[in-house]
Amino acid sequence: MTLFAVSWVMSCVDLPEARKFANSNVMKLPNDGTSRVVVSAVRPDIDAGAYAAKRVVGDHFVVEADVFCDGHDVVRCMAAYRRTRDRRWTEVEMEDLGNDVRRASFPLDEIGPWEYTVHAWVDHFAGLRNGLEKKIAAEQDVSIELLVAADLVLATAERAKGKDATKLNEFGRKLGSPGFEYPDKLGMVLSESLFELIEKYPDRSRETSYARVLPLWVDRERAGFSAWYELFPRSTAEQPGKHGTFRDCIKRLPYVAGLGFDVLYLPPIHPIGNTFRKGPNNSLTPSAKDPGSPWAIGSPKGGHTAIEPQLGDEDDFKALVDAALQHKMEIALDIAFQCSPDHPWVKEHPDWFVIRPDGSVQYAENPPKKYQDIYPLNFESSDWKELWQALLGVFLYWINLGVKIFRVDNPHTKAFGFWQWAIAEIRKEHPEVIFLAEAFTRPKVMQHLAKVGYTHSYTYFTWRNTAAELQQYLTELTTTEMAEYFRPNFWPNTPDILHEDLQVGGVPAFKARLVLAATLSSNYGIYGPTYELCVNTPREAGSEEYLDSEKYQIRHWNLDDSRSIAPYITAVNQLRRENAALHTTTGVRFHQSDNDQLLAYSKFDEHSANLVLVIVNFDYQYQQSGWIEFDPQTFGFDSESHFVVYDLLTDHGYRWQPGWNYVELDPKTNPAHIFRVVVPSELND
Amino acid sequence: MTLFAVSWVMSCVDLPEARKFANSNVMKLPNDGTSRVVVSAVRPDIDAGAYAAKRVVGDHFVVEADVFCDGHDVVRCMAAYRRTRDRRWTEVEMEDLGNDVRRASFPLDEIGPWEYTVHAWVDHFAGLRNGLEKKIAAEQDVSIELLVAADLVLATAERAKGKDATKLNEFGRKLGSPGFEYPDKLGMVLSESLFELIEKYPDRSRETSYARVLPLWVDRERAGFSAWYELFPRSTAEQPGKHGTFRDCIKRLPYVAGLGFDVLYLPPIHPIGNTFRKGPNNSLTPSAKDPGSPWAIGSPKGGHTAIEPQLGDEDDFKALVDAALQHKMEIALDIAFQCSPDHPWVKEHPDWFVIRPDGSVQYAENPPKKYQDIYPLNFESSDWKELWQALLGVFLYWINLGVKIFRVDNPHTKAFGFWQWAIAEIRKEHPEVIFLAEAFTRPKVMQHLAKVGYTHSYTYFTWRNTAAELQQYLTELTTTEMAEYFRPNFWPNTPDILHEDLQVGGVPAFKARLVLAATLSSNYGIYGPTYELCVNTPREAGSEEYLDSEKYQIRHWNLDDSRSIAPYITAVNQLRRENAALHTTTGVRFHQSDNDQLLAYSKFDEHSANLVLVIVNFDYQYQQSGWIEFDPQTFGFDSESHFVVYDLLTDHGYRWQPGWNYVELDPKTNPAHIFRVVVPSELND
Repeated sequence: MTLFAVSWVMSCVDLPEARKFANSNVMKLPNDGTSRVVVSAVRPDIDAGAYAAKRVVGDHFVVEADVFCDGHDVVRCMAAYRRTRDRRWTEVEMEDLGNDVRRASFPLDEIGPWEYTVHAWVDHFAGLRNGLEKKIAAEQDVSIELLVAADLVLATAERAKGKDATKLNEFGRKLGSPGFEYPDKLGMVLSESLFELIEKYPDRSRETSYARVLPLWVDRERAGFSAWYELFPRSTAEQPGKHGTFRDCIKRLPYVAGLGFDVLYLPPIHPIGNTFRKGPNNSLTPSAKDPGSPWAIGSPKGGHTAIEPQLGDEDDFKALVDAALQHKMEIALDIAFQCSPDHPWVKEHPDWFVIRPDGSVQYAENPPKKYQDIYPLNFESSDWKELWQALLGVFLYWINLGVKIFRVDNPHTKAFGFWQWAIAEIRKEHPEVIFLAEAFTRPKVMQHLAKVGYTHSYTYFTWRNTAAELQQYLTELTTTEMAEYFRPNFWPNTPDILHEDLQVGGVPAFKARLVLAATLSSNYGIYGPTYELCVNTPREAGSEEYLDSEKYQIRHWNLDDSRSIAPYITAVNQLRRENAALHTTTGVRFHQSDNDQLLAYSKFDEHSANLVLVIVNFDYQYQQSGWIEFDPQTFGFDSESHFVVYDLLTDHGYRWQPGWNYVELDPKTNPAHIFRVVVPSELND
Repeated sequence: MTLFAVSWVMSCVDLPEARKFANSNVMKLPNDGTSRVVVSAVRPDIDAGAYAAKRVVGDHFVVEADVFCDGHDVVRCMAAYRRTRDRRWTEVEMEDLGNDVRRASFPLDEIGPWEYTVHAWVDHFAGLRNGLEKKIAAEQDVSIELLVAADLVLATAERAKGKDATKLNEFGRKLGSPGFEYPDKLGMVLSESLFELIEKYPDRSRETSYARVLPLWVDRERAGFSAWYELFPRSTAEQPGKHGTFRDCIKRLPYVAGLGFDVLYLPPIHPIGNTFRKGPNNSLTPSAKDPGSPWAIGSPKGGHTAIEPQLGDEDDFKALVDAALQHKMEIALDIAFQCSPDHPWVKEHPDWFVIRPDGSVQYAENPPKKYQDIYPLNFESSDWKELWQALLGVFLYWINLGVKIFRVDNPHTKAFGFWQWAIAEIRKEHPEVIFLAEAFTRPKVMQHLAKVGYTHSYTYFTWRNTAAELQQYLTELTTTEMAEYFRPNFWPNTPDILHEDLQVGGVPAFKARLVLAATLSSNYGIYGPTYELCVNTPREAGSEEYLDSEKYQIRHWNLDDSRSIAPYITAVNQLRRENAALHTTTGVRFHQSDNDQLLAYSKFDEHSANLVLVIVNFDYQYQQSGWIEFDPQTFGFDSESHFVVYDLLTDHGYRWQPGWNYVELDPKTNPAHIFRVVVPSELND
């Protein structure tokens, strides 16, 4: 783009997009000139209300705003919220935190779309009451103030109903009547009973509302806490060399459930194309029996709504979905919107692809690389509406078969506008559906996919390999605006990514990266059985590809291999379920360590007072020791001279003091501590 | 407000403000489904376009945006801008800074309202061209790509005009024809001449525009760089005890201009009320000859559009305005929207005030304090439209007499909506008018006054009294969003504020605070002649009020007092004018010091390569010395083994090296260095 760097200027007539805004800033005399309160900076507010904040059912949603008024009047402030489908709003009083900041929170008891905003107004009675107290303390005469109070009470009576109105009228008359004694009037005006009655019928005729009503999306619980396991169904046959089936997968369920995972994610299960089919290790010369890549979708047997016959049929698939539910697991499908040259759409809808001047269909390429086995869809097609509907139909087809979780392949190579529309469409009928964006690309693109609706996002976790890098990355994910809409899903490996750490770090690296993924993020996953078997041979040196990758060939795994870390994974997933502190990502807090090979962080669940402290050794070769600063008082526990940290992996307990404590971790035996922190008050029971 | 902290929930039907947004987040199939580019986070963007960024004529306005597209296509991006009154937009290409950030800048050549936005689209030819280069480097056949290019060129020809269209058609035909040789076609497609021709007629049918057109306000130069001097006209008589007049002020002009100030600011000049008039030192028992406070505005002789007869008449005032211009100064008036009980409005418009049940008018109070000489206006009056027009009329009246600068008294006790409307109304005809907000209140309130239109704002400068406090405060003012809309005006003293630093620090404090105000902020002012005469006796210990304050009595000042620091002030204002680096506030940069009593900061003007380094000693009693880290290379000067810092106050030069250099400052002689940094390359000429 350097050519454009030299800025050139052109003159042109109005652009329609801009026209509609022109002169939008010319002031007219407002209708509500006497509305004196300012409601600003309501948060969260993502891109001026364009995108929804995300929460999980059961969360308490916290809203803040900057609210103030000219002068010294008292301002009352309400957060208003509702499920979008509701006619009625519910309001909750916003607490004054000082410095003109207000805060309220409300419970989210249903999944789906919600909305919220803020309203505020001047509370003259509260202001009068404050002044009255000061004047009385200064022994000033307040008889006129009492008459003002009387007027305000009578005005309130007109807004009140039934018994309240009667009461208020009575109060008002008494305050106004000479007969009623001065001290009694004072007592009445300052009484809580009158005040609460008045606050119940505020004068909101001059209320100010925030400029926008803001969207909020509430997901089901599994969107907030989940453990994913990816496997290739065709590699699940008991007999080596045989093509695995959905029935084989069913037999594998007890094993995966036993490991403690609750989402079983399958790469594409559709018929695989023959044209330019890839052989082992991505070779261009496959033999007849090579199954090809599941991501080369479509053959004469069908496309995105068909099943590869060798895996089974629709009934087999439904049986798998149901069996998974028996094991408290869900099946997640891989949706990859790209076509092999043999995909039915190529003939039926050539206008959904880019046709080149020679009549051929444009294949995928990243010059000089060519991917002739893949035809990308053309999101600039004049027939885009049909295309969008067809792609939406793919999701609906599998939802209809009981799939509620989708991992979407390379969403960043399809139009953002399509995702925003499709996800919203699906959620109208199916708010429970979860979408994971497999986008390993630039930060702003990944953020935007989350904004347009993706429930989960793949991250840079795999490439954050030092304690400092991970602390910095988690700080970005959990303390910036990203925390409102971007839900990370951490993966130590995928069929595409065997990181060098695992290649050279061996078992300690596999254990450490698992602990990091499972405890830093409340949503994480592994690609198995390669992970528990610590498979770590790359296709060639310097490559992140697996040797003899399952992407191109069927593999047979010996799950009983004595070197399997399955028991370790089982333990981690179990303690993860049992400790509520690990059920959120945003709560992570880092603690000082005097050894930069040791990363220490904690999570806390206030409701259950569950406090977990994790310490990971990033040196996969040698023992590392150091001092970690930690104090339970930070979390509101009583000051104590000592407390106990109990290692949930090794069953050892250690007696610690608030402040600096010594740890040593030998990667050969155990590369990480996962401590439950037990403070004495707790020990007693 | 603790009572409200216990949140109570009410249910209510839709609030109209909210209604209009309801379901605003339901997706429909968009019209522009094939517009694939995302334009987001255009900056500056203050409260989603609700408020304008501020700049000064002659500035180059810098716009940034996050712009990206799905896939790997090339995106072209334009910043569009215009004076709001114009029909036509001008566009400038936005440079790609990487990480999906684009930047452009454009010159502001006229004061008044401007607006800007961002447009972007996919540039298919640029993408094809990039791919082509890579493929050729990889020696791949590109004959089909050449045909694609031919189509794109012919499509461009249809958008082109005249000779360009002919050329493009010719190019397109050649690229498509078998007769034309392959290498020639390659050369043609890659030629800059064809590329530039094509970029001139882009296909913008799928363009994306930012969600908003954003407002920008451009002020005249004095709004960006000014030095204010406040004095009480009634204290300017040559003969002690006599009431000064505008004619006396005219005689004082050469003195003030000689000090180097360009704004002469006068406290209210209107008739002063008699009822509850204040005597010396704010006493409630004035004698007959006490003039009262100029802020108790209004008497039978008139209100906000009248002149106190003892000062002179309208002709005298106009003479003062004109005489000031002769000295390159402007008169700034104090607008205080409050009334004495004798103000004509009290009788003419009782409904502009709060009438109490006993029929009396509510006076100002801050319980238990009472200000019975002041009636506040009621911005909740049912007659608010008349009130607003009357207040607007006050500004227009004085503008009509040649006043273009207003210092507004306590704007935060009047409705924000009024200021937003009034300032916009005034600027329709008088974009040159400058408004200074005298609001010493909570941060968010001060920020909001700046957002609704105030040109300048008083600040917390007076109460930031250590090096660390000032560095932190300037960092907030110049590096947060405040820098876009909040223009500080620094005052070391005012008639209301004689800070303890000045009371105890004496002359060194007066000099140091002047240097800080004048060099940290491009807009600053002092209240004189008390400042140059270093008047520092408080009304009583612990008070920030002056003893025998001019607010309540006439004073006579001996300007020839030998202890006057007038020469020092003159020198500071002169070097300030002569060094362009000091003409902006936002450019300040702080430098490390090993002595926390020494604050070091620099400003740089790229255009004139003017670099100023200021070092101030915050110890007003004793000499302080220390080491300051400074390197001209930070500002792009050639690497040099040494350079010279030249003290503009003392005429001494010092030879420094890049890195740490030693300084010592004795408050008795000189509490501050104001260095011009001269690097050798400059010395040679």
